[in-house]
Amino acid sequence: MKGIAFSPAISHGFFNISHNAPRRWSISTKPIQFVKNQNQNQNPSTKTHSFPSFVLKSSKHPPTPVNPEANAPPLVVGSANADIYVEIERLPREGETVSAKSGQTLAGGKGANQAACGSKLSYPTYFVGQVGEDAHGKLIIEALRNGGVHLDYVRHVGDVPTGHAVVMLQSDGQNSIIIVGGANMSCWPENLSDEDLAVMRNAGILLLQREIPDSVNIQVAKAAKRWCSCHFRCWGMDAPIPLELLNVVDIFSPNESELGRITGMPTENFEQIGQAVTKCHEMGVREVLVKLGVKGSALFVEGQKPIRQPIIRAARVIDTRCWRYFYCCFCRGFGGGQDKRGVHEICWYGWCS
Amino acid sequence: MKGIAFSPAISHGFFNISHNAPRRWSISTKPIQFVKNQNQNQNPSTKTHSFPSFVLKSSKHPPTPVNPEANAPPLVVGSANADIYVEIERLPREGETVSAKSGQTLAGGKGANQAACGSKLSYPTYFVGQVGEDAHGKLIIEALRNGGVHLDYVRHVGDVPTGHAVVMLQSDGQNSIIIVGGANMSCWPENLSDEDLAVMRNAGILLLQREIPDSVNIQVAKAAKRWCSCHFRCWGMDAPIPLELLNVVDIFSPNESELGRITGMPTENFEQIGQAVTKCHEMGVREVLVKLGVKGSALFVEGQKPIRQPIIRAARVIDTRCWRYFYCCFCRGFGGGQDKRGVHEICWYGWCS
Repeated sequence: MKGIAFSPAISHGFFNISHNAPRRWSISTKPIQFVKNQNQNQNPSTKTHSFPSFVLKSSKHPPTPVNPEANAPPLVVGSANADIYVEIERLPREGETVSAKSGQTLAGGKGANQAACGSKLSYPTYFVGQVGEDAHGKLIIEALRNGGVHLDYVRHVGDVPTGHAVVMLQSDGQNSIIIVGGANMSCWPENLSDEDLAVMRNAGILLLQREIPDSVNIQVAKAAKRWCSCHFRCWGMDAPIPLELLNVVDIFSPNESELGRITGMPTENFEQIGQAVTKCHEMGVREVLVKLGVKGSALFVEGQKPIRQPIIRAARVIDTRCWRYFYCCFCRGFGGGQDKRGVHEICWYGWCS
Repeated sequence: MKGIAFSPAISHGFFNISHNAPRRWSISTKPIQFVKNQNQNQNPSTKTHSFPSFVLKSSKHPPTPVNPEANAPPLVVGSANADIYVEIERLPREGETVSAKSGQTLAGGKGANQAACGSKLSYPTYFVGQVGEDAHGKLIIEALRNGGVHLDYVRHVGDVPTGHAVVMLQSDGQNSIIIVGGANMSCWPENLSDEDLAVMRNAGILLLQREIPDSVNIQVAKAAKRWCSCHFRCWGMDAPIPLELLNVVDIFSPNESELGRITGMPTENFEQIGQAVTKCHEMGVREVLVKLGVKGSALFVEGQKPIRQPIIRAARVIDTRCWRYFYCCFCRGFGGGQDKRGVHEICWYGWCS
């Protein structure tokens, strides 16, 4: 059976923030195929890319073990979405019917995408999320399973649809999106039991996004403190981030615009970004990894000089979804107990094929 | 396994024509469930409704056999769609992301809906259509199979998505729709072979809509002349109807607005409707069944007095999807060899539970 493609991934938060997205995602772009056994896959478009080993010491700083269990798997708690792309000349008006030039529905969601990328790096990755008992739920489960993601902790909920998003790609390059939270936002237990949280006992890193309720993220992040050594978070919702969540995450990772929105401060140059990050430190986050687009990224550890990493140009870039890979390389590096500068640098190689 | 619900049915053509739909379809309405063995189904919401027998003689006119094979099954050739409903406060603007209040994806499409209704009348119904090899295709196949529809002649096409429609239900009662033709509009053989058309040798009636290419409908309708005694057609596309198609159908069935659009004539009262129907006769259609909404329906046979049938009020109406049932009762009546007046009257009882 052929692998099911994942969405070229419009991170909804990105669109939420960047209303005039400078770049249009084309649904004709070949998405990466996730297949169960990557080594057996001979299709050039789905081959396993060789990432530099994280055992490499690319920095003179000695490695700082962050996780006592170096090979502990990453755990992603987050959203699973069906991304329904329709390519249209223009948006329909009220009461109007328009024909799309094309359409495609792909598995997506920040959480499921991160889990698929973790698994793509040949790293056993666990995903905790919710899907409805419907066609879109089956699409996501099949895609994650084919991607080799461990799904023992995925919850199937009956009364709500699987989360989905209608992405309307317009011919002038604009995108408009309608998000249905569905199972991502509903039916989570009010209080996660120890049993629910047991999955993270063996996790090396916890990856959180923001397409599930903050209350779930807060509980999970708090519980992670007992077992996991590190976790991330990034954008995905338009509401202010609860301080309770910011206080409990180890590393917070926005892009420039998200950082600006969160702090209410300008982030047009590196100095301004540094000032905004200082505000994040004051809000309770010790480490902030800022994505700077084509300028690379910068890791700010409170009280230390920021580690800047320019983009590493390669002959070939997998595709624009690679921020996911960047994260997964980054967290894998931490899971492997590497030093921050080395990890930060080397995960840029992970970006490149 | 529970039955999969069919779409509450936005016939896309209806919305295509009536840009200011007076009534908003609520996705919270419980759709009818189709189950394989209706007699075993004890759920009140899914129970089999008792329709009056078509053996009843409700007219003084003697029955006019139309089909030599009285029990020959109906054959539906047409579209299969995934209808993706999203309930939103207002349409998103260019570049904007909005959250939906709710969402639901249901099996639909004029063709699949008619087939499901035929089967719901405990009549073996064959469906010929195309779906993609994707999650939406599986949704439709599962729904039709659970509805007892015969699917031996459904074509699975690999290179295009299953047809789908995004129906944006807005809080002011307006609806906007984006249609992706997908497998409904692509990948049909240019010339249907005798083998492709063999299915209609045993059909009692052929039901056509207009959500697949006209060229397919024309070929099928022409072939039907050799074997099937009667067939319909209704709206589903915004382009002018080819005369070649109108010339070959036995009964043409528009509603008032569709009739107005097709003929370019006013259809505000019965006299005007009669004049527009005369134009349809001139265009080559001998029989025209006009749906008149709450006023009932009228069957015009060329050279004869129109048969008007007011709506039959019942204690309970299944739901507004009942035009589908009306058609299926109507064609079943013809399949059973009843006279037109009797069938026309009695199929209104089929509307009611």
